[in-house]
Order: sequence, then structure tokens, then C-alpha cells
Amino acid sequence: MTDASVADLAEKLIACPSVTPAQGLVFDALEAILAPHGFEIDRFVAGEAPDGPVENLFAIRRGPAGSRHFAFAGHLDVVPPGEGWTSAPFAPERRPSPGGDLLYGRGAVDMKGAIAAMAAAVRDLPADAGTVSFVITGDEEGPAIHGTRALIERMRERRDVPDLILVGEPTSTHRLGDMVKIGRRGSVNIWLEVEGVQGHVAYPHLADNPITKLVAMLSELESLTLDEGDEWFQPSNIEITDLEVGNPAHNVIPAKAKARISIRFNARHTGAELAERVAAIAERHGGTARAIISGEAFLTPPGAFSSMISDAVEAETGVKPELSTTGGTSDARFLKDLAPVIEFGLCNATMHKRDEGVAVADLEVLARIYRRIARAALAC
Amino acid sequence: MTDASVADLAEKLIACPSVTPAQGLVFDALEAILAPHGFEIDRFVAGEAPDGPVENLFAIRRGPAGSRHFAFAGHLDVVPPGEGWTSAPFAPERRPSPGGDLLYGRGAVDMKGAIAAMAAAVRDLPADAGTVSFVITGDEEGPAIHGTRALIERMRERRDVPDLILVGEPTSTHRLGDMVKIGRRGSVNIWLEVEGVQGHVAYPHLADNPITKLVAMLSELESLTLDEGDEWFQPSNIEITDLEVGNPAHNVIPAKAKARISIRFNARHTGAELAERVAAIAERHGGTARAIISGEAFLTPPGAFSSMISDAVEAETGVKPELSTTGGTSDARFLKDLAPVIEFGLCNATMHKRDEGVAVADLEVLARIYRRIARAALAC
Ligand SMILES: [Zn+2]
Ligand SMILES: [Zn+2]
Repeated sequence: MTDASVADLAEKLIACPSVTPAQGLVFDALEAILAPHGFEIDRFVAGEAPDGPVENLFAIRRGPAGSRHFAFAGHLDVVPPGEGWTSAPFAPERRPSPGGDLLYGRGAVDMKGAIAAMAAAVRDLPADAGTVSFVITGDEEGPAIHGTRALIERMRERRDVPDLILVGEPTSTHRLGDMVKIGRRGSVNIWLEVEGVQGHVAYPHLADNPITKLVAMLSELESLTLDEGDEWFQPSNIEITDLEVGNPAHNVIPAKAKARISIRFNARHTGAELAERVAAIAERHGGTARAIISGEAFLTPPGAFSSMISDAVEAETGVKPELSTTGGTSDARFLKDLAPVIEFGLCNATMHKRDEGVAVADLEVLARIYRRIARAALAC
Repeated sequence: MTDASVADLAEKLIACPSVTPAQGLVFDALEAILAPHGFEIDRFVAGEAPDGPVENLFAIRRGPAGSRHFAFAGHLDVVPPGEGWTSAPFAPERRPSPGGDLLYGRGAVDMKGAIAAMAAAVRDLPADAGTVSFVITGDEEGPAIHGTRALIERMRERRDVPDLILVGEPTSTHRLGDMVKIGRRGSVNIWLEVEGVQGHVAYPHLADNPITKLVAMLSELESLTLDEGDEWFQPSNIEITDLEVGNPAHNVIPAKAKARISIRFNARHTGAELAERVAAIAERHGGTARAIISGEAFLTPPGAFSSMISDAVEAETGVKPELSTTGGTSDARFLKDLAPVIEFGLCNATMHKRDEGVAVADLEVLARIYRRIARAALAC
């Protein structure tokens, strides 16, 4: 690999449009970056319509026999850029700012910038330091059914299961290094429905109002305390996100009433257990529940791995990161089944927004942090 | 007036299409029926768009000075006929049935047949028996803003306020005479709304879920006992008739949630009092309430007037009518402010339906019952 700066590498990736699912060119660009540094590249396509096909890349550079195996994980797909950008979203552009140059482009922080930093981090890492790999999907922002899950299967088949995994999601908030994610809450959406008997409001005894039952059901769900939270997680939370009846007739008791709830839960629960619990409540009120689990919770309890990351961050930035479990879901919800996983990356202020941008200096610092983490992870 | 049968008179009215608001021809037909029998006819138009103009008719035949004044009240407008009639809805047709001839046509029971019976009832009533009037609107099935209410104003202006009023709505159920309405519940619809703060379900502390508040509000409303009912009324009742959020995003807490309730209330309450009570509950839960009162409750407690009606029914049919307060609203909700009012008329099985029809024999019997009632009312 040349002496390209991290920003140069990030520009190469940003210049390849890769709205979910990412395909072809952007993977070619990453392959071209990694191959010169001794990585064996395994690219494959998984799944079929409607949730596929999805392109994935597994790259590995083996250390001496018996080496520890440290993996960087991430995604090359990006969310749609939307309108109103100052410069074209897939034409990376550096513009000066009072704090130093900023590099703009869709994916600058989520997460082509982080993947560029990972690549730069391994550039100078001696090959005999241990086994290093890249676990990169083209579908993290989409259905995510044939992305990281297919990569996990691939690694198991290859018997290349890592000992520790670092996901490069943009976890920092106000400044690089201020937050690391050691866990994420799980998420399950549940559709509730009650069927009643339609009738005239003047003759309620001839009807069976499904809204009455739905309101009682929702009251009970609102009154549930799933847990009190703990040292690492805020309490699991139920939000009612939709109500639907659609009855234009003022004097008619409708035949059906629906609601939707969203539960964000911590690692004390599974999606299936919560879905069952809600279904039992729904049935007791004469209704039904249909659940879709978006992701299970994960927690990598603070310990040696999180310390490596904190130490690396502090050494390069002077910042002691907060170990957090807040926010939405990420592919760490799948990777947790393979090995301990922690997430750390750039500042997320502009992720998924127009004029997504990253400080050029942060890219260099992130590469140095990643190098320290890899070194520590392989040495332990 | 000729010796036209009640069915002949009913046919004349049915043959004039008069979907709400009734206009012109059908009023001409009624005027032609009443005028020969000494009635002074006062026709007038009230209101403007969008709830008008509405045509109304007040007809009066005065008895000797100091006579009592008995009024028949009703409406010449009909609900739209809809599809699928055996014979054309505005071409009255008699067809034989096992129980005797039936007369078909929109309005046969609700309530051109009853108005024909009223006209026949006064035909043979001696003019010196007392003052008799017809209070007939062209808009009872519609907004009803410029119909009976305008007639009430007109009668007050004319100083022709009746002592008793009989409304000819189809109150009978299985056979003519089985039910008389001495009251009706009132009706108020209330639109409830809660505004919150939109946000992501992963960060509920940054949002304010309006559905949570709406569900608590609705739970409280559901738990209210407005009253236990009494000898004449069933308990007042609240039904939730609609819920609306319309949030397609599974992971978003919406900004607004709405519901609609319908309260049917007995004569212990007024619409305004209930609207205020609900508004106070809505406000306590951070929401607002907007009420539209469709009608106040009325009750003409059983006594001399209801006895006259029961006795007349029993004398002609052998049936002792049930004195009821069930069902929807009628224009009696306005007339109650003018004089004691009771409703009695034909069987309501086919009202508002296709193939609306009435037994020809019932029309004759109803005319005789109405004549007895008028006689008794004027004599007392
Ligand atoms: Zn991402
Ligand atoms: Zn009617």
C-alpha cells in the first residue's frame, strides 16, 4: 500500500455510489486497498429477491499458527443521500473549516471513513502480530438478512472465527472518542388487533366495541415494568407507535381496532419472550399480536476488551470514553453470537443527513486508535 | 276532502320524490290534502347553504276561542332510496302478501304513511273539537338545523304554541302499537386530540408520546359511570368510535394522536355538561376535546298524555304499548321545549331500507288511533 492518507482512502470509497445494497465498484475499491497488504479476499453474494442478492467481503491476513484473530467489521452500503447537498454526495470534497479540513460525502462517517481508518491501521501492523480480518457487508442499512448473517456463516464454514470483533459504527457524539458502545438494546415491533362486532352506538348491547378492549390492552401494556434497567442498560421500554380504526361514521361502533407497539429491550430479555408476553396480554383482552423482531440485545460487559479500547482512545485523544448501550440497533446484534463485540467509530452528528462530513484529522486519529486496539487485541 | 283511503293519501305523498331536503311538490301535495278541511297553510323557507334552504309547513285549523291545541309533527323528507328496489321507490305500488296488501315506496313508514294517517284522522274530526295543527319539516333526516327548529320559532312568533305534540315517527317494532317513545336519549360526539413531541423510539426521553396520554385519557373515560339509568332510561353510555394516528414509521413516536367518542345520555344530563366534563378529563391528560351536541335527551314522564296514547292504541289494536326511551334521536329533541311530546307511528322494520313498505291495513288503523288521540287531547 502506498502512503495514501486515511482521507485519500476514504475518498476512494466515497467516490463509489453504494446506496443499499452496495455492489461491485465499492467492493473493488476496498479489495484494491487491502490486497497489496497481504489480505486474502473472499467476496461472495448471498440471498435472493426480495431481500437480496447482497454482496459481502471477508478479507483475512493470517498471523503465525495459533495467533489470535482480531476482526474489524462494518458496511460499505450507505443510506440514500436525499436532496440539498452543498457538493455532490458521491463526489468527495474537502473544504476548510475553522477546526481544520472537513471531508464531505455520503458515508464519510457511516462508515466508509471508519473502513478507510481500519485499512490504514493494518497497513503498518506487522504481519506476524497476529491474524487480522475485515468483515464487510453491502447491506447493513437495509433488510440486513443476507449481509452480516451470511458473513458469520461464511466465517464458521471457513473456520475463521475471530476472538474479538470491533464494529466501526460512528459511536462518538461531540468529539472523537467520547463514546464507545459495549451493547445495544434489542428491538421488537408488535402489531395488535382486536375484532369486535359492528353496531349502532344507540344499541351498544348489540355490538362489541373492539376499541374498548384495545384501550384496556394498551393500558395494561403501558403499566408493565419490564425491568428497572441496570448498571449498563436503561430500563426496557414500550412505546405505542400507532393507532388505527378509520371509522368515519359518528354513530357506528366499528368492527376492528388496531395498534402497533415498539419495545426496546435490554439484555435481560429476548425478542421472542417479550412477543409471547405481549401476545398473552393481547389474548386476555380478546385480541391478537403479531411480532417482528428487528434485533436482539447484546452486551459485552466491561472488561479486558473495553479497557483496550478505552486505553487506545485515551492515549490518542486524551478523552476517556463513556461505555454506553444507548441508541438504535447495529449488526453487532448478529456478531455477538460469534465473539465479544464492541463498537467504536467517528462522530455521528451528520450520519444519515445531508452534507455528511468528517474531520480529516479525525480520520488519522481514528486510524491510530484502531492500530493500538488491534495491537492490544492480538497481544493479549 | 274526498273519501280517499289513507293508502291513497300516502301514495300521493310517496309519489313526490323528496330526498332530504324535501321541496316543492311534496309540500304542494300535503297542502292539497289539508286545505279542503279548513286548514290555514303557512309554508316558509328557512336557512341558507350549506345547511339550507329548508322548506317547512305549518298548518292550523282553529277551534273555538280558548280551545286546546293539539299538534301532529313530522317530516316529508326521506333518506336516499339506494339500489335494488323491487318497484321504483318513488312510484308507490301495492302488492298482495299473506297478511294483506302492502304499500311499497320510500317514506311508506318513515313517515309519509303516518302523515297520511294524521290527515285522515283530522278529516272527520269536528272543527269545533279544538285547535289542530301540522308541524311538518323538509329536513329531519339531514342537518335538521333549519327544519323543526325554525317551525318552533315560527309557532312562537305566531303565538300558536300547542299544548301537546305527537310525532309520527315509526316507533312500532313487531306490530303496530307495540311501542311508544316517551323519551329519547341525547347524543354528543366528542373529538379528542393530544399533541406530543415526535421522536425516535430509541430515545423516548427526547420525545413525548401522545398515544400514552390518549390511552390514559380513554381508560379514564371508559371507567366513568355517568349514571345507573332509571325507571325510564338505560344508563348513559360512552363508546369510543374512532382512533387515529396514521404513523407508518415503526421506530418513530408520533407527534399527534386522536380519538372520537360518542355519548348517548339520558335526561339527567345535558350535552354541554357532558362536553365540559370530558374536556376536563382530556385537559388533565394533556389533550383537548371538541364536542358537537347532536341532540339533548327528552322525557315526557308517563301520565295523562301517555295514557291517552296507550288507551287509543289498545282500543284499536288490543295491544298495550311499551313506553320506551330506546333508539336514536328524533325532532322530539327540539319540540320538547315547546310542549310535552310523545312519538308514535308505524312499524319501523323497513325504515331507511330498500323495499320500505307498510301494511295498508295498518295505515287505516293508525288513522283511527290518531283520531282517538286527537279527540282525547282536545277534550282534556
Ligand atoms: Zn452504519
Ligand atoms: Zn323519520
